[in-house]
Amino acid sequence: MTIIITAFERSPDGGRGLARDTRVRWALEEVGQPYDVRPMSFAAMKEPTHLARQPFGQIPTFEDGDLVLFETGAIVLHLAGRHAGLLPDDANARARAIAWMFAAVNTVEPPILERETARLLERDASWYEQRLPHVEGRVRHRLKQLSERLADADWLDGAFSAGDLMMVSVLLRLKSSGMLDDYPNLAAYLARGEARPAYRRAFAAQRAIFTTAQKTEI
Amino acid sequence: MTIIITAFERSPDGGRGLARDTRVRWALEEVGQPYDVRPMSFAAMKEPTHLARQPFGQIPTFEDGDLVLFETGAIVLHLAGRHAGLLPDDANARARAIAWMFAAVNTVEPPILERETARLLERDASWYEQRLPHVEGRVRHRLKQLSERLADADWLDGAFSAGDLMMVSVLLRLKSSGMLDDYPNLAAYLARGEARPAYRRAFAAQRAIFTTAQKTEI
Repeated sequence: MTIIITAFERSPDGGRGLARDTRVRWALEEVGQPYDVRPMSFAAMKEPTHLARQPFGQIPTFEDGDLVLFETGAIVLHLAGRHAGLLPDDANARARAIAWMFAAVNTVEPPILERETARLLERDASWYEQRLPHVEGRVRHRLKQLSERLADADWLDGAFSAGDLMMVSVLLRLKSSGMLDDYPNLAAYLARGEARPAYRRAFAAQRAIFTTAQKTEI
Repeated sequence: MTIIITAFERSPDGGRGLARDTRVRWALEEVGQPYDVRPMSFAAMKEPTHLARQPFGQIPTFEDGDLVLFETGAIVLHLAGRHAGLLPDDANARARAIAWMFAAVNTVEPPILERETARLLERDASWYEQRLPHVEGRVRHRLKQLSERLADADWLDGAFSAGDLMMVSVLLRLKSSGMLDDYPNLAAYLARGEARPAYRRAFAAQRAIFTTAQKTEI
């Protein structure tokens, strides 16, 4: 039974790896599980078949036999629980790695998403220029705290874990912003994540869909 | 060894149960584990002792012998994995319940937090009145999707689970907004959560700290 994930047929990020299927692809590569991709159009994502899998009409989803899952964090955690490579063996260390997964999506990502929302949906609003520094201040506040905790370690808590996979994925959203330049240890942490062979395979695979889609158009 | 959690010495919500320690108290009550509370002042939350436990200077934290955890979702999941009462036995159903935990904190809560951030930090900004309907539109978009998925079920996926505990906790943030009135099944879902004996004990316990702190001041 092959694992099937859904991904954007044409990712709005132009293949820069920011769509959330990259996180799931990365986890699958880290644990060495093959998978197939079902590319979804924006229209198909709003149809009942997909909403049955993903009530919020998003990608990715994950299918493995009878199991249908949504939410990237839950998919990564499911894979980490079934296969070696993403969580330490020690029970306490596992719980701490899972804490970093939640910290990535619930503490560090929200202000970053708020910044993206502003840039995507409020760019033409009268308040955009005036408000952006406030939003970026909230992002910097979290980056400073994360930078202080990471200090000169390679990963957040011992060896690379699903917590780092999720945190690196969240920080990737800021890569083009220049904001990470003020936190050299976070920039280096991001680079370490991107240098992992599993990440590189995941990135290439999501990029290939985009490139193929572009060629089809021409 | 008694479990110790941290909570606000004086919760900014005035004891309405919105501080995140209520989520952990609720989980502890559902699984029948006693706990002690270490109340924290805002100043103490920024000190190295607390930052070692919680790198973002927030509450709650969770200590159980050698294990120190932060992030409410991770604490609730840790408790759910060690004690009966918060996750189904079937492996696939467990994975789906965990998906709802992540959906609560990563899909439904972010626009709700954005609304709270606007109300707390941008109320005096020139754009506040004009921007708020946009933010509330994003909240309603998620509420509509959640309402459609819940339909006439009691809980999100079979029996009450940690996924419902987290989702009800997120929706509680909207209780005073009136926004849930447009989604009667979500309002009823919230009421079912609040009616659980474990939630009522958790709510009373966090409220007691606030009441005691107020009496001390007088």
